[in-house]
Amino acid sequence: MKIITKLKTLHEEIHHHKQSGDSIGFVPTMGYLHEGHLSLIKEARTHNDIVVMSIFVNPLQFGPDEDFDRYPRDLERDRKLAENAEVDILFMPDAEEMYQGPLSVVLNVKERVHVLCGKKREGHFDGVVTVLTKLFHLVQPERAYFGMKDAQQIAVVEGLVEDYFFPVEIVRVPTVREEDGLAKSSRNVYLSEKERIEAPALYKSLKDAKKKIESGDLNGDSIISEVTDFIHRETSGRVEYVEIYSFPELTPLADLKGEIILAIAVQFQKARLIDNIIISLDIKENQHV
Amino acid sequence: MKIITKLKTLHEEIHHHKQSGDSIGFVPTMGYLHEGHLSLIKEARTHNDIVVMSIFVNPLQFGPDEDFDRYPRDLERDRKLAENAEVDILFMPDAEEMYQGPLSVVLNVKERVHVLCGKKREGHFDGVVTVLTKLFHLVQPERAYFGMKDAQQIAVVEGLVEDYFFPVEIVRVPTVREEDGLAKSSRNVYLSEKERIEAPALYKSLKDAKKKIESGDLNGDSIISEVTDFIHRETSGRVEYVEIYSFPELTPLADLKGEIILAIAVQFQKARLIDNIIISLDIKENQHV
Repeated sequence: MKIITKLKTLHEEIHHHKQSGDSIGFVPTMGYLHEGHLSLIKEARTHNDIVVMSIFVNPLQFGPDEDFDRYPRDLERDRKLAENAEVDILFMPDAEEMYQGPLSVVLNVKERVHVLCGKKREGHFDGVVTVLTKLFHLVQPERAYFGMKDAQQIAVVEGLVEDYFFPVEIVRVPTVREEDGLAKSSRNVYLSEKERIEAPALYKSLKDAKKKIESGDLNGDSIISEVTDFIHRETSGRVEYVEIYSFPELTPLADLKGEIILAIAVQFQKARLIDNIIISLDIKENQHV
Repeated sequence: MKIITKLKTLHEEIHHHKQSGDSIGFVPTMGYLHEGHLSLIKEARTHNDIVVMSIFVNPLQFGPDEDFDRYPRDLERDRKLAENAEVDILFMPDAEEMYQGPLSVVLNVKERVHVLCGKKREGHFDGVVTVLTKLFHLVQPERAYFGMKDAQQIAVVEGLVEDYFFPVEIVRVPTVREEDGLAKSSRNVYLSEKERIEAPALYKSLKDAKKKIESGDLNGDSIISEVTDFIHRETSGRVEYVEIYSFPELTPLADLKGEIILAIAVQFQKARLIDNIIISLDIKENQHV
């Protein structure tokens, strides 16, 4: 595995692989790798000649009150995990390398951001699309891999790629979960012992709701109430939101139909957890016809 | 020469050339080709395996009071000129193909736009970088060619490419001029016979100023006055601006030094003409040391 920190070195390496006709799979991360990331790498490994992973804690996507400084980092461990997962190129630039001065052109996300986590994280997705635009141009991947855990991020990135015809396929990779259902996340380490025991209730509430919707209960408001109540009852966390939208457009639905997302965010004492489930109602609709 | 109007067809064609290892030179235009464009094609032809030219009158870069509907079009003539100039692929999408719906992410140019033509054309360069980002992703050129006549456009595009690490080299191609010095432009056809005779005064004023600056007259304000007076005296046009900036940053200069641009815009009855000259003061500075 090659570890690269400089744009110039990465550029030469990518150029070499492009000349050789290698297909490139790209896994952008902020490090502190867990099995969620490893599943992205595994997908990339299966479908591409070369796997590039980036580790970059992007300051631009953290708000002033967010956990940029506190975001967990363990580069030595990440390096070993990446090597074991057969990453070919590990790109770990510092912020000065990625942001060499003030931007003369800025990216601003207008759609898909005023819901879910985006509502409370003004500018977050501007930072995400800014760094991804840079990374996509540097790495020039055929395919880029994102976890469905951060479904809103996928929705925004798919919008970016569609709007600007980026020559990259965005691959949605299912959320990796602990045995008890809790979605893997770098932030799970901040859960107390008690909270960790409660946390699987999040996914259970989503699965129960999915079952209900699929069996014909298409009342979005009552689904949202039930999920909210369940989490209140089963955890000490504070429900930040329970929302239902079309996916990936993230627009409100008068009637539940097509591909929809049910997404939740729950604030525990030191960790804010998110989870979601995608429900496809197309087949049911066709059956009714 | 292949004429392509659909994204999908272009994508397949570009993919084929990329697989073959062909280098791609790209000339984005709004059509109504003149010798300025042909010089861009000639440069692209010399340095690349494949030359792609686009003709797309981009609605997004015209303001509500500008000449989008009146912008001259002659696709049949353009097609012949492109073919004679040995363009390999002529890409002529319609607006529905390039803008398939509202953008979920927008580009906004913050620097290099509040001077020169940008001052009066709010949003113009947002439209330019939006369409170029799309076109760069579609065509995936190694090199893209722009005429120095629209120097502010080059400055903005260089900013875009630097900010976001686009894997493309922006090539500055000198302004092509009529024998009498008038810069070639699609809009010259709107000059009256009398105005056409006066118009070479624009370039003459720039050349005179360059000579003065190079011979040590570094008083920007007096240079600007002299250029303004000269154009007033020699033409019936209305001077819109005469400005001096660093290039390509387009920031004001307390002292004239380094690479600078002297740029002018003159409004005639039906045609607004622009021109500029780049003056490099580095050598002189070194001589003084």
